[in-house]
This record gives sequence, C-alpha cells and structure tokens, in this order.
Amino acid sequence: MSQTSIGIGLLGAGVVGGGVAKVLRDKAGPLGALTGRPVTLEGVLVRDIGKDRPDGPPVVLLTTNIDDILDNPRVHVVVELMGGETPALDYMLKSISLGKHVVTANKEVMARHGPEILALAQKKGVQVLFEASVAGGTPIIAPLLRDLVANDVLTIHAIINGTTNYILTRMAQEGVDFDVALKEAQELGYAEADPTNDVEGVDAAYKLAILSTLSFRARVKDTDVHREGITRLTASDFLYASELGYAIKLLAIASREDGAVQVRVHPAFVPADVMIAKVDGVLNAVEIETDLAGRVLFHGRGAGSMPTASAVIADIVDIARNVAGDVVPPASLKLSEDVRIRPMLDLETKYYLRLNVADRSGVLAQIASVLGQLDISIASFIQKKSDEAAQTAEIVLMTHRAKEASMQEALQLLEALEVVVGVGNMVRVEEWQS
Amino acid sequence: MSQTSIGIGLLGAGVVGGGVAKVLRDKAGPLGALTGRPVTLEGVLVRDIGKDRPDGPPVVLLTTNIDDILDNPRVHVVVELMGGETPALDYMLKSISLGKHVVTANKEVMARHGPEILALAQKKGVQVLFEASVAGGTPIIAPLLRDLVANDVLTIHAIINGTTNYILTRMAQEGVDFDVALKEAQELGYAEADPTNDVEGVDAAYKLAILSTLSFRARVKDTDVHREGITRLTASDFLYASELGYAIKLLAIASREDGAVQVRVHPAFVPADVMIAKVDGVLNAVEIETDLAGRVLFHGRGAGSMPTASAVIADIVDIARNVAGDVVPPASLKLSEDVRIRPMLDLETKYYLRLNVADRSGVLAQIASVLGQLDISIASFIQKKSDEAAQTAEIVLMTHRAKEASMQEALQLLEALEVVVGVGNMVRVEEWQS
Repeated sequence: MSQTSIGIGLLGAGVVGGGVAKVLRDKAGPLGALTGRPVTLEGVLVRDIGKDRPDGPPVVLLTTNIDDILDNPRVHVVVELMGGETPALDYMLKSISLGKHVVTANKEVMARHGPEILALAQKKGVQVLFEASVAGGTPIIAPLLRDLVANDVLTIHAIINGTTNYILTRMAQEGVDFDVALKEAQELGYAEADPTNDVEGVDAAYKLAILSTLSFRARVKDTDVHREGITRLTASDFLYASELGYAIKLLAIASREDGAVQVRVHPAFVPADVMIAKVDGVLNAVEIETDLAGRVLFHGRGAGSMPTASAVIADIVDIARNVAGDVVPPASLKLSEDVRIRPMLDLETKYYLRLNVADRSGVLAQIASVLGQLDISIASFIQKKSDEAAQTAEIVLMTHRAKEASMQEALQLLEALEVVVGVGNMVRVEEWQS
Repeated sequence: MSQTSIGIGLLGAGVVGGGVAKVLRDKAGPLGALTGRPVTLEGVLVRDIGKDRPDGPPVVLLTTNIDDILDNPRVHVVVELMGGETPALDYMLKSISLGKHVVTANKEVMARHGPEILALAQKKGVQVLFEASVAGGTPIIAPLLRDLVANDVLTIHAIINGTTNYILTRMAQEGVDFDVALKEAQELGYAEADPTNDVEGVDAAYKLAILSTLSFRARVKDTDVHREGITRLTASDFLYASELGYAIKLLAIASREDGAVQVRVHPAFVPADVMIAKVDGVLNAVEIETDLAGRVLFHGRGAGSMPTASAVIADIVDIARNVAGDVVPPASLKLSEDVRIRPMLDLETKYYLRLNVADRSGVLAQIASVLGQLDISIASFIQKKSDEAAQTAEIVLMTHRAKEASMQEALQLLEALEVVVGVGNMVRVEEWQS
C-alpha cells in the first residue's frame, strides 16, 4: 500500500456520504496535519453516476462497481454509508477480508452482525469503527469504550431517534395529535414517507442493541429488544403527563441485574425535572448510569449531514493515525457468552393508565378491585372530561410499582369489565433516584 | 521493565487517590482483561504513613519518599493526585524524564504548564493523560481530542465548578442569599473552609484554560481568563432572573473569532430553556459548539472519589493497552503559535443591571440618557420594591447588545449620578441561537 497517503473508499454519496466527501476536501489540510499523512478520497461507490452532485465528489472518482473500490490498493479505509443490510454487510465483510479498515454509520448491520464483523476484523488485524451508528454527531461509542472503560454500566436511558422526539415535542408543546405532528415532521424532512422504522421504535432498537452490546460486553441483538412505538399516544396523554409532572419520551432503556439484561424501547413518563425530559426536538441524548462515574449524559445532534460526518471523520482519523504510525490497536471489545435476556414480563415499574369508562358510581371500585387482585395499587387518580351524551368519562390512574405480567393481565381484565368502554392507553413510568 | 504487569505509582492517597487504589484492587480482574496484562499498584507516595486508611492501599506500599516511586523500575505509570503546583509539577517532569507515563487530575499544573509537559512527554516517547482534570467523571478531554477532532470549535459554555453550581442552585431554589448557601455547602463538604478558589472562579479558570488550549489548539493560560466570582449575587438577582425567564450560572465561556480567543469566567444570565440552564446542584456540564457537529453537551459528576477515579483509570487503561501492545501513540495535540487573546473590553453582549435609585420622577430618563450616550439601548425595564422610608427604589434593566467597554464606562457614570444610590449588580446575558 502507498506510504504517502491514507486512501478512503466511500460507499454511498447521499446526505451523509456527500457530507463526508465535502469535509475530506474542505479540511484536507488540518486532517493531514492531524494524521501525519494526507487523507485522500480514492473512489466513491454510487448508484447513479449521472446524478447531479453540486457539492459532491468529483465525477472521476465515481463508480457503480464495488470492485473498483475493493481492488484499489490505494484504498486503506472503506467508509460504508449506504445504510441497510444488503449489500452493505457483504461489502464490509469483503473489505475486512481484503485487509481494509472499515468505518460505518450502519446501525442495522452493526446491531445484527456487529460481533461477527468485529471478530473478523480482529482476525484480519484491521479496525472497524462505527461511532456514527448511534446518536450521529454526539460522541457515545468511543466515550463508552474509552472514558467509561473502568465502569460497570448499570442502566442506559436514551433518546436516540430524532424523528420521534420531534413528534413528541410538538405533541407536548402544541397539544396536537400524533397524525398532525407526524405530517409536520414529514413536511420538514424529519420523517420519511413511510415512517414505520422511526415511529415503531425499530431504528431506536438497532441503536439500543449496539449500545447494550458495548455497555454490557454481551451480545444483545435488535430482536432481543421489547419494542413499542408512539402511535397510540394522544394529545390527552400529554396533558395528563404535564399535569402529573412528567414529560413523555420514546426511551430506549437497558439495564443489567443479576447477570440478566433487559432491553426495551417504548414511550415512557419521565419526571419533568430530570435532564433527559428536557431533550427536545430532533436532538438525541444518551444517559449512562455506572458504578463509578454515576450518571453521565451525552447530548447533541443524532442525524444530519455534517454531524454524522463529524463522527465518521473522527473514526477515519483514528484509523489513519494508526495506519500512519503502523500501529495495530488492541481489540477493545471482548464479549462474554453468558448473558441472559430478561423477559419483558419480569419488569417491575409504575404505570400510567387512561381508561374510558361508564360515567356512573362504583366504577372506580370495580377497577380498583381488578387491580388489587393483581397486587397493583393505585398511587393517584384523576377523573376528567365526562361525555354527557355518551354517559362516559375518562379516568387516569398512576400506580405504584407493579409487575408487568400483572399489568398485562389487568389490561385484559379491565377491557372485559362492563363499565370499561376501553383502555385508552398504558404508559410505563420511569423513575430516577437522586 | 517488567513484561508481566503494568505497574502504577500513585502520588497521593487522599479522596481521589484512595478511590483509585480501591478500584485498582476491586477491579483487578476486569482491568487485566481489558489491558492484556495485570495492572498492579507498586507504590503510593503519602505525607503520613501512620494515618488510618481503612479502605486504602496496604501499608507496605506506602512511602514518604518520591524516589521510592521514581526509582522503581516496575512503575510504568505515575498517577499524580496530590493537587497543587508544588511539588506535583516537579514530580511529573521527573517521571517523564525517566520515561514513565503520567496520569494526572491536576488542573492547576495542566492549565499553567500543560503544553511544556506534553512537549517533554513527546520528546521522551511517553503519554501524559489528564481526563480527570476537567469535569471529573464526565468524559470531555478524550471526546474533544478524539470524537470532535474533525471539528473547529466555535464556543464553549461550561459549568465546571460543582461548589458554585450547588450554591447558585440553592440560591435559585430557596431564595437564600450567598452567605447562607455557602455555609450550607461548607457543612455538606461541597465547599472548603476557605472557598476562594471556587467562589472567585479560580478553579473554573484553570479548567477553562485546559479546555480552550485543547479546543483551539492554541496556548491559553489561566491568567488569560477574565474572571469574576459569584459573591456579588443576591437573592433578588435570582428573583428578577426567574421573572425574566433566565437562570443564573457561573459560566466558563470560550470563543474564537477572527483568530482571536476570548476566555472568561463570570456569572451569567442563561435562558431558562437551554440545556445548560437545567444543570443543577454539584453537577458539571460542558457544551461545545462546533462547525460540523453543532452543539454537543457532556453532563455528569465533576468531582468525588469514584467519578474522578473513573476518569483516572480510563487514562491508565489507555496507557496500559499501549504499553502492553508496545505502541507509541502519535501526539494528539499540536498547538499553533499565532493565537491572540481578545481583551474583555471587546466583548459585545446583553446586560442585566440592578440599580438602587432615588424614588422620584425623571430618574429613568437620566439613566437612559447616560446609557444612550454610550450606545447602550434598554430592552426592558422593571421597577421594584420602593423603600418609602429611604425614598429609594430598585430598578432592573435588560439592555440590547452593547460593548463591554461602554458598559464599564456606563457603570462609572451611573454611580456618579446623584439619583443613583448604587449599582446593585451587573450580570452579562448569554444568548443561544436555536
């Protein structure tokens, strides 16, 4: 390989890839000074060479053939920014097999195949870095592996999907329903035409799987994550939450107890005075609670061309410095085999319940009786909005800590009560000890 | 040197040193697995060997003679946790000269002599790491040098003194005056008997000098920092701030414009809805605004035995991995020579003014006239608390952006006005563009 420059092969020239190409060009001087060698873009894999790229890489570097990147001996680092599992995974594995380092922002591939990819990389003596795969421009993976390395991670609470946080922020601030806020997010380009991956928590589950694997040094897959989206939340849930002193956030939560890991993505009531309740709009935040450092929170942009490029280039510089110094960095991730995923039904937490009930006396007694049989005790109770025509009323309950299994059973029993018109919503309540 | 273990020589066995010794002992297994070699405590420099250390290092390792550490060939890493400039600086330089790596939490030494220390370290091929010197257990230095490496830092806004943030939080929440809150902080062990270094911003200035040097890759010393403490704030300032939609924080602020760096530590009005306004109690936060990543905020514990040990051990692991892998990491900090420190009088910002004035008509006109002559225009005005006996009133002004030089001149002219009994306080107002 060339000793004079660090060559980059870029897979994908979309929003993020274009940003990386731009920064590599605009900051060529400082990046060369940082790494000790020029960092040069040697080739860019695109789908359509004819596409107009006013601010993109020069046409001479573009190719639609992956082999032009893989077979190029001047490419030391393959930067995968195509997204999706296929063909990105294949290209990454081939790059590693050919002795090329890999930088990726691909949360899907890293959540599903991260440990295998890292194992192959170690075997081949190359680095695979993926800082941009979680929380975009907000540093989280390197700090976890470097700064918090002496810590045992106890819990993670994260807002790692900007689209849903934007929607929830608008619902809270404007009192609008989900559909209205989603449409607005789509118009602003924060949500895709098919918003499923965001609003159903799929994207957050990928990122939580990556964070959990690194934090607990145990294999946690996206399919291990219990996942509920935000589509069932209504404007009234936000009103009640605010009245009760809470924000509603789509949280990605991981915790380890007795060697078992619990991972879940779902809407949660968050006490209004904790930092993560104050994370608004498209911003991301990851709060890591550890045995030594206590709670550490990282907050910033989770997406976007330049923020993501910031993380990608940091990974490139890391690798380039090692290439320039002829250094093989020690593998920083050893996974233990013996972790158990704790089932969601083992959860114990507080719950918010919004019920639509018949507006007559004795209703609360019936509900309390159902809950009481299952050892769920009521902490507070609000009755709101009688609908005189329909003779119904909306009631809101906050419970003390109870078992998820009991709550699931209670929801079925409540639905079956003649006085219950319907369960409006159940939202879990997260607690922070100060 | 021994190939079988990474030896640590500890200077200081106080709160932090004791914590580091405890973690090295309690986590010996995992730390050895992380670094590939056992990490062993080889000696501890203390002032008094006879002192009772129930949870501390074994007596056999204690010494009062620095040469026992420096001359010990099994010590690869000297961990300096004595604090203060003398003799810590001397011991660090000697360690480096002898080819030993250094980890330190010493903000004073790093603020004053950091660049010289790092230059000597590079010459001697050893590492000097100092993550714990700023914001304790909250990762900030490694993320700056690693994750944000591709960014140009534009501004830093930081709460990096837990003592003063605790005092200000109590003043805001309880409506108490400075003296009361300070006494409480002293009783809780958050403030020292002589609180000068904290309440006058000296400690924050050290840390800001370190952050600025790293962020701007330019030598910034603690003596370059314009520094004002929190002793002049009163309960009434917090009432007015709250009424106007602000929190009051002791901010450490650095910015670069046109190649000049401005560094200052002073109380500031912070809009209540920005993240840093919500950092309460002894917690720390550093917000870094960059060209690519936008605003990134790091939040967590800035002091304490275990949080600080978390940062110190992360640095030890970093070095131990390199020692185990026989790796000389490239110097990550190259300073430019040509930075100018922008004088405080060049600042342009908004101001909060609290004045004690004669309670009669025409007073505001006189004040507005003085300000107007100096191109300071009033954005809003509150009159409060007439004191009928003294025939005085308290008035509060918020200005538009104005020059610091003009404001300083205005303060003198206002003091000289016959209708002004006294300037109660002037506090600068920080703005965040969204």
